[in-house]
Amino acid sequence: MSRVVQKFGGSSVADADSIKRVAKRVLATKQAGNDVVVVISAMGDTTDDLLDLALQVSPMPAARELDMLLTTGERQSAALLAMALHDLGVEAKSYTGSQAGVITTGKHGDARIIDITPGRIHASLDEGSIVIVAGFQGVSQDTKDVTTLGRGASDTTAVALAAALGADYCEIYTDVDGIFTADPRICPKARQVPQISYEEMMELAASGAKVLHLRCVEYARRENVKIHVRSSFSERPGTWVMDLADISPLTDKEGNPMEQPLISGVAHTLSEAQITVVGVPDRVGEAATIFDAIAARGINIDTIVQNVSRISSNRTDISFTLETADARAAMETLTSIKEQVGFEEMLFDDQIGKVSVIGVGMKSHPGVTARFFRALADAGVNLGMISTSEIRISVVVDAGSVQTAVQAAHAAFGLDADGEAVVYAGTGR
Amino acid sequence: MSRVVQKFGGSSVADADSIKRVAKRVLATKQAGNDVVVVISAMGDTTDDLLDLALQVSPMPAARELDMLLTTGERQSAALLAMALHDLGVEAKSYTGSQAGVITTGKHGDARIIDITPGRIHASLDEGSIVIVAGFQGVSQDTKDVTTLGRGASDTTAVALAAALGADYCEIYTDVDGIFTADPRICPKARQVPQISYEEMMELAASGAKVLHLRCVEYARRENVKIHVRSSFSERPGTWVMDLADISPLTDKEGNPMEQPLISGVAHTLSEAQITVVGVPDRVGEAATIFDAIAARGINIDTIVQNVSRISSNRTDISFTLETADARAAMETLTSIKEQVGFEEMLFDDQIGKVSVIGVGMKSHPGVTARFFRALADAGVNLGMISTSEIRISVVVDAGSVQTAVQAAHAAFGLDADGEAVVYAGTGR
Repeated sequence: MSRVVQKFGGSSVADADSIKRVAKRVLATKQAGNDVVVVISAMGDTTDDLLDLALQVSPMPAARELDMLLTTGERQSAALLAMALHDLGVEAKSYTGSQAGVITTGKHGDARIIDITPGRIHASLDEGSIVIVAGFQGVSQDTKDVTTLGRGASDTTAVALAAALGADYCEIYTDVDGIFTADPRICPKARQVPQISYEEMMELAASGAKVLHLRCVEYARRENVKIHVRSSFSERPGTWVMDLADISPLTDKEGNPMEQPLISGVAHTLSEAQITVVGVPDRVGEAATIFDAIAARGINIDTIVQNVSRISSNRTDISFTLETADARAAMETLTSIKEQVGFEEMLFDDQIGKVSVIGVGMKSHPGVTARFFRALADAGVNLGMISTSEIRISVVVDAGSVQTAVQAAHAAFGLDADGEAVVYAGTGR
Repeated sequence: MSRVVQKFGGSSVADADSIKRVAKRVLATKQAGNDVVVVISAMGDTTDDLLDLALQVSPMPAARELDMLLTTGERQSAALLAMALHDLGVEAKSYTGSQAGVITTGKHGDARIIDITPGRIHASLDEGSIVIVAGFQGVSQDTKDVTTLGRGASDTTAVALAAALGADYCEIYTDVDGIFTADPRICPKARQVPQISYEEMMELAASGAKVLHLRCVEYARRENVKIHVRSSFSERPGTWVMDLADISPLTDKEGNPMEQPLISGVAHTLSEAQITVVGVPDRVGEAATIFDAIAARGINIDTIVQNVSRISSNRTDISFTLETADARAAMETLTSIKEQVGFEEMLFDDQIGKVSVIGVGMKSHPGVTARFFRALADAGVNLGMISTSEIRISVVVDAGSVQTAVQAAHAAFGLDADGEAVVYAGTGR
């Protein structure tokens, strides 16, 4: 008998009918002979509605209490799914994160899972029951208070439970058919990817692909949990995210080996902004002072570029990108240390985008950077900052050039679908 | 330092502004030097909305899961009140029933409190924090599942906590100014009662007064917890419910003792129906068969009257009243045993009302029944079934005569307010 963890997001349980549809899907998995544990998000807009309510009461809600409030959304959908399963004639029990043994750190709003003690889940599975766990939440090891796990956290809950329960795999149901070679909304020739490695998926997630959250993939890699990302609106197979060693080599229709692709996908994001600190005195430690101050505000920096020093003035410019939502706080921080550091001015630009090509194939093929840049040049796209990892090349471009850049890169690395266009099932998110 | 438990109902926390108003009230109690524990109900229509959602998913929701769903309402309002208190600069922590140590039986939807283990509440009070407990809920001693306590249960939670914490008293905030000598909506001359005994309050609650639930008053009497019922919309003192021995005798303005009233109040209900089982064979055990069958369906019977047997036929008629909502189930049950018992037919009437006069004074004054019946006769009200307890006389009358009967009884026992009319603050419920 297999054991499967299935996670359904808010768009899959938006109303009573959706919940009943999910119940049938869960039942089918149970009837196929599996132990089933379901992790569920809050219904549709529930979390946003609760957050609105909190902001009506308090402009900056107390973090412990916000967690207490927001976690009720998942508890509601979990209970409702259990009711729907009962009506289909199968035993089902819902559990809060705390009841399910999701033990976390104490940082409200952004806690991390540190242990799973699934005693009650095991007991219910042994009774033949389907187990439904409220996602996104846990209980603090120290204070026993209710915690939430931050963005994308129901996915992480599902992977963590799959690891703790020794599940064969973890299905993440969403509103798209899986992982695509690019975002089909801006690249119509994007194709669904049947399999992808943890490392590539992490780079995709970090570079703007929204389907899986980075922390969830990191957890899956660490615990070697196979993830199957698929649509809750169709029966089509989705994308398997797994260890590189487990991925089957590409073959043609006759089963003959094919050349492996250099690039698995093209990711983009429009949510970043760029700040340039102009005229930083070229002394040891000035960059450290700047980024220490920004880190102390809890702001994450993405790409950093420092130009060579101007010999005439002994000054340099430092540029970096960050989430646009954090830009105001970063600018305030920089202003507060302007005298101390002695830089000349700050420049700000949020009309930028970042385009990344990602693939384990590039490790052994030195020409990837050249081919990427040539494709962008031929398409008339100007490059700004550049950053790379072992399996990723990212460039900052004008926001208006992002679509052109994604399409050019997608074509240049032979990712374009031939024949008819790929059907894009979801509504995007 | 005193310790106070305050309970706020759903109408007191209907929206964000109400929650902020309640927060100020709680803060004032804290600033007066009290330890404060707040028990809170779900906001406005939240519970009804959740129940609607459950019924959309399942025509008969699984009881365990319905409890899991409905308890989220109180958790939300508890967290929101804690946020509002934080903004006023005072430490406040919300707890679920389970976290607060409300240990119950395992009967979902109608669990009973069997113990309170308030370790976390004590710890928070010792830190100087205000404690907010989600009402209406607990955790099953055996299964550790979330339970709900049935109707009026947040009041019971408050009284139980007051007893367990050794609170000086328990304030129940509602949308009326306290307990009245009759329902001011149908008896404009009703007056607010400053003090009333547990026994009278229990009879009032059982006879239709809606302000406090019977189970809550029973609990308070058993644990000798003083209850102060008052309006959350005004600062006026409300009604103290307490042991008869603690109630101060009535005095006039100069402090001279006055004659104590025979009757403390007149209660009425229109929510009952009357069923008559006609032609029951006059054999030992037939009445037991009938009421055993009805009890087995979980239906509560109120008044029962059995006529003397008709000598001609050796048959009798048995009438009883019950909540109209239970009438269909009772009729079905009776139909199923008609052959077995051999009765002739059933009569049904839901156009009835019950009017009760209640007062510890009647124990020592035999003329109360006569005065009550004379008042009804003078007002032209016909009596149906009659039942009595040591401190209560109830009569069933036509629904259309209830208002007349209440006013007549109220006047006959000298309860009418003189001078200007009493202001009725609330919106009724």
